Amino acid sequence: MGADVLIILGSKSDIDVAKKAAERLKALGIEYKVEVASAHRTPQRVEKLVKESGAKVFIAIAGLSAALPGAIAAHTVRPVIGVPVSGKVNLDAILSIVQMPPGVPVAAVGVDMGENAAILAAQILAVDDKALSKRLSEFRDEMARKVEAASREVGGI
Amino acid sequence: MGADVLIILGSKSDIDVAKKAAERLKALGIEYKVEVASAHRTPQRVEKLVKESGAKVFIAIAGLSAALPGAIAAHTVRPVIGVPVSGKVNLDAILSIVQMPPGVPVAAVGVDMGENAAILAAQILAVDDKALSKRLSEFRDEMARKVEAASREVGGI
Amino acid sequence: MGADVLIILGSKSDIDVAKKAAERLKALGIEYKVEVASAHRTPQRVEKLVKESGAKVFIAIAGLSAALPGAIAAHTVRPVIGVPVSGKVNLDAILSIVQMPPGVPVAAVGVDMGENAAILAAQILAVDDKALSKRLSEFRDEMARKVEAASREVGGI
Amino acid sequence: MGADVLIILGSKSDIDVAKKAAERLKALGIEYKVEVASAHRTPQRVEKLVKESGAKVFIAIAGLSAALPGAIAAHTVRPVIGVPVSGKVNLDAILSIVQMPPGVPVAAVGVDMGENAAILAAQILAVDDKALSKRLSEFRDEMARKVEAASREVGGI
Amino acid sequence: MGADVLIILGSKSDIDVAKKAAERLKALGIEYKVEVASAHRTPQRVEKLVKESGAKVFIAIAGLSAALPGAIAAHTVRPVIGVPVSGKVNLDAILSIVQMPPGVPVAAVGVDMGENAAILAAQILAVDDKALSKRLSEFRDEMARKVEAASREVGGI
Amino acid sequence: MGADVLIILGSKSDIDVAKKAAERLKALGIEYKVEVASAHRTPQRVEKLVKESGAKVFIAIAGLSAALPGAIAAHTVRPVIGVPVSGKVNLDAILSIVQMPPGVPVAAVGVDMGENAAILAAQILAVDDKALSKRLSEFRDEMARKVEAASREVGGI
Amino acid sequence: MGADVLIILGSKSDIDVAKKAAERLKALGIEYKVEVASAHRTPQRVEKLVKESGAKVFIAIAGLSAALPGAIAAHTVRPVIGVPVSGKVNLDAILSIVQMPPGVPVAAVGVDMGENAAILAAQILAVDDKALSKRLSEFRDEMARKVEAASREVGGI
Amino acid sequence: MGADVLIILGSKSDIDVAKKAAERLKALGIEYKVEVASAHRTPQRVEKLVKESGAKVFIAIAGLSAALPGAIAAHTVRPVIGVPVSGKVNLDAILSIVQMPPGVPVAAVGVDMGENAAILAAQILAVDDKALSKRLSEFRDEMARKVEAASREVGGI
Repeated sequence: MGADVLIILGSKSDIDVAKKAAERLKALGIEYKVEVASAHRTPQRVEKLVKESGAKVFIAIAGLSAALPGAIAAHTVRPVIGVPVSGKVNLDAILSIVQMPPGVPVAAVGVDMGENAAILAAQILAVDDKALSKRLSEFRDEMARKVEAASREVGGI
Repeated sequence: MGADVLIILGSKSDIDVAKKAAERLKALGIEYKVEVASAHRTPQRVEKLVKESGAKVFIAIAGLSAALPGAIAAHTVRPVIGVPVSGKVNLDAILSIVQMPPGVPVAAVGVDMGENAAILAAQILAVDDKALSKRLSEFRDEMARKVEAASREVGGI
Repeated sequence: MGADVLIILGSKSDIDVAKKAAERLKALGIEYKVEVASAHRTPQRVEKLVKESGAKVFIAIAGLSAALPGAIAAHTVRPVIGVPVSGKVNLDAILSIVQMPPGVPVAAVGVDMGENAAILAAQILAVDDKALSKRLSEFRDEMARKVEAASREVGGI
Repeated sequence: MGADVLIILGSKSDIDVAKKAAERLKALGIEYKVEVASAHRTPQRVEKLVKESGAKVFIAIAGLSAALPGAIAAHTVRPVIGVPVSGKVNLDAILSIVQMPPGVPVAAVGVDMGENAAILAAQILAVDDKALSKRLSEFRDEMARKVEAASREVGGI
Repeated sequence: MGADVLIILGSKSDIDVAKKAAERLKALGIEYKVEVASAHRTPQRVEKLVKESGAKVFIAIAGLSAALPGAIAAHTVRPVIGVPVSGKVNLDAILSIVQMPPGVPVAAVGVDMGENAAILAAQILAVDDKALSKRLSEFRDEMARKVEAASREVGGI
Repeated sequence: MGADVLIILGSKSDIDVAKKAAERLKALGIEYKVEVASAHRTPQRVEKLVKESGAKVFIAIAGLSAALPGAIAAHTVRPVIGVPVSGKVNLDAILSIVQMPPGVPVAAVGVDMGENAAILAAQILAVDDKALSKRLSEFRDEMARKVEAASREVGGI
Repeated sequence: MGADVLIILGSKSDIDVAKKAAERLKALGIEYKVEVASAHRTPQRVEKLVKESGAKVFIAIAGLSAALPGAIAAHTVRPVIGVPVSGKVNLDAILSIVQMPPGVPVAAVGVDMGENAAILAAQILAVDDKALSKRLSEFRDEMARKVEAASREVGGI
Repeated sequence: MGADVLIILGSKSDIDVAKKAAERLKALGIEYKVEVASAHRTPQRVEKLVKESGAKVFIAIAGLSAALPGAIAAHTVRPVIGVPVSGKVNLDAILSIVQMPPGVPVAAVGVDMGENAAILAAQILAVDDKALSKRLSEFRDEMARKVEAASREVGGI
């Protein structure tokens, strides 16, 4: 497993959020791997995936009582990014991921924000990787240009 | 470990809620054991306690992103009762415990309701234990008498 | 009434949640019965159904101010599992079911989680039934296998 | 039981909210009676109190999963006023009382607003009682005068 | 204006909720009138409608910052029933209606529960009207029969 | 009434929030007047105060179902600033003030933020008053200096 | 840039809310300009637009963690009106905009209420502009007439 | 500025949360610096601190409409950790920090969890620092031992 980022989905149904993460990682030139593992249905699988992975950063995508990011964090001191998946309540997944107890943090991003999880993972990997840092800056510049282009479009209303 | 109920606290600070559970179990004549184990700080300890325990019912007490009840449920098919502990947000622990994903339920009781967790554990054990069932009925009768006594007290306002 | 589990719906409109419970009970080989009874529109019917039932576990499915699980619990010391049904607010049914007062617990499961109610009922019945306990373990194993299969599917994104 | 209003508390601990109701009823010259009865601990007592009561209006005061107002409403077609009692969550009692299912309404007032429950009861009784209606109007005038007096006090800041 | 109940909508868009109220009032043989008036856009119209109305009970239907029920209550000591209308937030209308300040209560019913507002209005009018009280009891019996019929339908799942 | 700003409190108990507004207005050299008037207890007083006032901006301070800002806005096309006052729920006052219906806006500021209401009022008055605008800029500069001073203080932790 | 109002959208996707603001400003005869600028993606652009703008009032439209209104307010002492845009959570944008810290207020209006932002901007500009004030009063009168017309339509239900 | 972590407080009043972060960083042997800077009161100061800082990770601590973490993230592609500070609402700071828009993530940790922010910062720095990674593992082990010690203490209840 040579991937720098391991994306774990709590359920196959979280695939759309995972795809947004995968696409952004790919665009930033970061190697990743995707697995499904459930904190509640397959706790040993979560533990095994985490411990055997050589990943430097984990992205965990889960809804409802989203225990997956915390379950991963319990088995590694690598940074774990948690993405709450939207559902019937939404506050459940947000609060389950962000309100971690003292000592074992998870880095929570917004509801369904798979892309932001990827960018945060890239920012973490870029701490000691100037080339990646440069690609992130270029991505920022590109976003800025899109905002300016959008501004020209809406100007006429 | 001959105890029928194993109470696990996510943190020593949850002790007051645990005491309410312990007292009610004692009063109902049920053997129990109390341990501290954290889903996030000591995941293996949770797994070990659950798998080595001969307990028929588990009570898990935790606040914040209260992953403990679900983490216990992930390692057993015994009934797991989850007690959310109050804090700065409250909805975090309630929703983390009640909103379990399909396939691995937790039986959630109310915020800080250690006593209700004990009664629910007793009700579960009483399914095939007529003597315990009778003690539960007597406890109900006693509560009803207290309500009537309270009614006489407040009648004068 | 020889059924071990009595499923009570607060309203016919909760049928889809009830079906998920019924299917899982059937798959686990547990006898059940389904009734509609409303805590508010037919309180005597609720009382009668509960008192005359020989069921060992009750599953109550209700939305809005979901009083049904508590109303059932008020008439029995058997375990009562409450399933909040989703609607315009959702927190109403969740909190109505989980926040029971001291002395009369309800075992709350997640919003619309009829299947989890069935599994929890099975877990309770399995406390003294090794064959059922084994079926529950097999169901867990089957879920784990599905997670692994799903993992292979999503690996390519 | 000649009282026009029956105040029922779900628990003795709700006494302060009940006192505010009782004082306002007294001031408005309305006969009332106060009882404690719990929808969950003493369902028969609730039913008996409601059915044997000759009260024209019921005030039900309860916190948490506040089933009491609905339980009373289930046994009478008299108007039932529900007062949510504050606690660790607050939205639990508010939503449990206000979100009644179709067919069996409860008249919800604000958190801990025992006095408003009394005034609403008086307004209901005053529909066919001109003298009481006049006392309610005088109470309104008195409140208005207090607002004006308060205005003079704060004018100097 | 000989109608016993005046239904006021905050906006024409609340018509569906109003219809449910109107139909139930009609079925119960209660005279009603329907008006649109906005607490914010037409405060004088609200005042005029309320003061000139001979209605014994008011039903106010409004969403968002639902000030209408309170604005009506400010101009009368007649009972005012408030119906929160669902929208993008829902808690806004519920809390705006239920959390009235001391001295001026509104009787809040559930989100979009126009029918319950009508039944509550009928219950208030029935305090001194035995014939109406009997019709309400018959409506209850009819609901109970429907629950039993529904029970027979779902029994087969 | 020569004051540019009229501060209206829904209740004398909101005085602390009003004082923060008054102090800031005074410091910015703006004439103001303070009154108590309740949208629910004294609707005519609200109307009279608003219509007879020559104020250019209104500040309305209220808690619970905070109808006061909207009630003022209903009687004037002057800008109305609403300040939600904290209580047992908080979301009630915030949502009641911010979620105004189409056509009649209120400018909501944060919970208990009397000072921000004053600054916003000053910003509105400064649209055509360069001297006041300059005082606001100076106040900003002063805040910035305080932040820098605070930074020096905390630097040592 | 001679426009009195500058509307800034956090994202092109907020266009529908912006259009409602633009249409109302146009109808009230107020000059405006529309730009897209993101507090997070283009902070310098926000600063530049605000500082170079001669606008008297700013309208900022943003969803999620809606920092844009506050970011604009940080660069000007002109009044800034914030419009929360609806999404998966809604409370995020509402609270991000309304709960500004001491010293830098934003005038929050309701979710998606672009039109109300425009009216509030007009009310601010009308403080010293009698002609505009008159147009606002006429718009109020027109709304009132529409309410009366709507009342005639619904009267028949 | 040779510090690897720059802690920025939105206000001096957030000092207690900052201290918990500082203590943990110190214990882990990480160089840090503490500053106060407000996204709303001193936006240029935030920009200057971020751009001139050589820090590899930023920790931003803020309450209310907690724009600070996002404002920092807008000026750097370094990882930014946001800590919501508790107040009268709590959901405001949590949602403001976690619900960042696409493209500019913030790593949110729990309410008042300064220590977790420090640990997450350390985990990020440890991605390419084996010695730090080892210290983090030792800290985990120490926490685990404390849990076991706590378990022995509570065992007697």
